[in-house]
Amino acid sequence: MSITRHDSGPLLSLAVEHGDTVYLAGIVAKNLKNDIKGQTEEVVAEIDRLLAKAGSNKSKILQATIWVNDIRHRAAMNEVWTKWVDPKNLPGRACIEAKLADPNALVEIMVTAAR
Amino acid sequence: MSITRHDSGPLLSLAVEHGDTVYLAGIVAKNLKNDIKGQTEEVVAEIDRLLAKAGSNKSKILQATIWVNDIRHRAAMNEVWTKWVDPKNLPGRACIEAKLADPNALVEIMVTAAR
Amino acid sequence: MSITRHDSGPLLSLAVEHGDTVYLAGIVAKNLKNDIKGQTEEVVAEIDRLLAKAGSNKSKILQATIWVNDIRHRAAMNEVWTKWVDPKNLPGRACIEAKLADPNALVEIMVTAAR
Repeated sequence: MSITRHDSGPLLSLAVEHGDTVYLAGIVAKNLKNDIKGQTEEVVAEIDRLLAKAGSNKSKILQATIWVNDIRHRAAMNEVWTKWVDPKNLPGRACIEAKLADPNALVEIMVTAAR
Repeated sequence: MSITRHDSGPLLSLAVEHGDTVYLAGIVAKNLKNDIKGQTEEVVAEIDRLLAKAGSNKSKILQATIWVNDIRHRAAMNEVWTKWVDPKNLPGRACIEAKLADPNALVEIMVTAAR
Repeated sequence: MSITRHDSGPLLSLAVEHGDTVYLAGIVAKNLKNDIKGQTEEVVAEIDRLLAKAGSNKSKILQATIWVNDIRHRAAMNEVWTKWVDPKNLPGRACIEAKLADPNALVEIMVTAAR
């Protein structure tokens, strides 16, 4: 199966196609002054962009890992998540707390999707 | 390849089939008054149930991520894990510490399996 | 699709082939007296060894999860990562902080690759 990589920087590719599956990097917001809701909105918009580039979309997400830097932010993150996901095509998901690379990054989401 | 989702709630699906692969959500116990061993037993029983629903079983697990809310619980979790897994068909695995959504949840396990 | 497991111990297999995909365990260094750079070098060498055993190599890595036990070690880990990865074939990646099984383990890396 062929591998196609998108948006490759010095450390990683933001999306990697492998056959019928696409693996995204952990996505964080760029505007780190926003609160958890604003950051989550930016993250899911970027996931939409990357999935489209890789021939997929949010209705095809298979599994998501969500790291929040404070587990008490989970409810606010979930508000944005619930508005964003396709309610008829919900992925598997884990949401746990972890310190992220930038102390001002409040949420990071990494998904695997079908193409 | 077709996608089939099982046990979908408001936030996520507990299991998602994609071709020959099945992606589970991170599973936590419902009875959070149990100790780490009791919670792990409930988690692996639920994984058994979900894998069966998706046409798989524990002998086909490919990769597992295990979060414990206190890394000192790893040994007790491993006792249950070792009794549960198919010793001839062990998956790849990572076990790390993380705060989980509910402070009384002591362990969360997310697996990917073959069908 | 067939499943082939490599280097299976009491708890896990270090590598699992499933069709065109290979799932590795979270890899930590054995020499835990080394600093973050030394430990990362040992981890990526072990990943190279396991990928080769499973018919893959670092140019085919699809997604990597990197746990560091202190997020301030990320820059030093990245120095080793950048020298190691194939710059024309970079994987998706997330790097977060987590306590690992051994308090002296500074980094753990789990990858999924194409075969």
